[in-house]
Amino acid sequence: MKIRVYYEDTDAGGIMYHTRYINFCERARSELFFQRDLQPHQGDGSGFVVKDIHASFFSPACLGDLLEVRSEVLKTKRSSLILRQEIFRGEEKLFGMEIVLVYLSMGRPSRIPEQFLSFFGSN
Amino acid sequence: MKIRVYYEDTDAGGIMYHTRYINFCERARSELFFQRDLQPHQGDGSGFVVKDIHASFFSPACLGDLLEVRSEVLKTKRSSLILRQEIFRGEEKLFGMEIVLVYLSMGRPSRIPEQFLSFFGSN
Amino acid sequence: MKIRVYYEDTDAGGIMYHTRYINFCERARSELFFQRDLQPHQGDGSGFVVKDIHASFFSPACLGDLLEVRSEVLKTKRSSLILRQEIFRGEEKLFGMEIVLVYLSMGRPSRIPEQFLSFFGSN
Amino acid sequence: MKIRVYYEDTDAGGIMYHTRYINFCERARSELFFQRDLQPHQGDGSGFVVKDIHASFFSPACLGDLLEVRSEVLKTKRSSLILRQEIFRGEEKLFGMEIVLVYLSMGRPSRIPEQFLSFFGSN
Repeated sequence: MKIRVYYEDTDAGGIMYHTRYINFCERARSELFFQRDLQPHQGDGSGFVVKDIHASFFSPACLGDLLEVRSEVLKTKRSSLILRQEIFRGEEKLFGMEIVLVYLSMGRPSRIPEQFLSFFGSN
Repeated sequence: MKIRVYYEDTDAGGIMYHTRYINFCERARSELFFQRDLQPHQGDGSGFVVKDIHASFFSPACLGDLLEVRSEVLKTKRSSLILRQEIFRGEEKLFGMEIVLVYLSMGRPSRIPEQFLSFFGSN
Repeated sequence: MKIRVYYEDTDAGGIMYHTRYINFCERARSELFFQRDLQPHQGDGSGFVVKDIHASFFSPACLGDLLEVRSEVLKTKRSSLILRQEIFRGEEKLFGMEIVLVYLSMGRPSRIPEQFLSFFGSN
Repeated sequence: MKIRVYYEDTDAGGIMYHTRYINFCERARSELFFQRDLQPHQGDGSGFVVKDIHASFFSPACLGDLLEVRSEVLKTKRSSLILRQEIFRGEEKLFGMEIVLVYLSMGRPSRIPEQFLSFFGSN
């Protein structure tokens, strides 16, 4: 998944604002759902929520850069997933994070539905 | 209402990103509701939506600036309001807009409830 | 230019936050520059700034929508441009605005360089 | 430091978008500088950059919530700082993170100036 850095993503330091990297990773996760006509959250309050993020910033992205988000599943548990997501500019890694997502149903951690498990490995 | 300009509000041009002025005006409108323990939108789908904005940008705001949003009602109709909202840094006007808000109930323009009319003049 | 609506673009009202439409139009303008390896602002403080926006909101965009921004030049003056930019979901127009951009060089309105004039009509 | 949750901070899930917690912590750090008429980044390219974030999300914040950011220095090294920043709604902790900031001068990790060290403990 390719994402362009626009003015709204940068700050007065002249580089991309630090949480935009994490937003870009969320776009990549949501895109997995949208491309299957699914939504990350269902109307009944069930869906994935972010529990934990461990992020490292290696090098700054700049206005106009075309970035690529790469995602892989590190571990699957009954009601949670650990993903590694990294952002590259060409072959240079700018950012990496591990993120723990928990699946909630009616506000409680619940077994991840089969349909979601099947595609999280495929990005 | 005083609002500080933080990094997230600026862009690589070194100044505040242009739509943040409009966001700051929305904060000022919402604050009127929150301070009365009300919400701009109710859970049943009724509430105010933005119909039209006419905005003029006079001078840029910068990182760390402390801005003030001033709001006044220009006109009240059955189901809509026209507000003027301006942003100042000290006595210098940086931004001004006129905004038309429509009150929707179940997705249709509807009479503005009395409780909302009463406080929109008082900012 | 196609743009997806992600979580970060929506708000608790369940629809796209109103200024995101205006951001999406800015992305479309900047994309014209990036695709020619140009930048909307040069390091020496010259570039286009937003002077005036008149925006109308027709219908809300929702999470996961794939939107299209269409842009055309309405008028070209010595140091400013008027553009019309509209956002469609399929054939439905959700948003339209007219925007006045002024070209600044060293902080003052200046003649728009030929290279920029030539491509603003081509989106 | 008290921060209100506005529409722009929420998403279609009805709660605060996950990276906004991290933005709010950045506001609190920047406020330390602004209140002393200092800037987190100087014009010559020196200043603090984010190197690493480890964030945990305990409970969601909602539209209109008034949140408090509490910050403390965990460790000070020659050219870097580790801070703990937490976000509370009343006495309930919603979010916590440890963040590593590195001080750069001309793009290289450098000794943190005395004036900055002195106030980072005082929030």
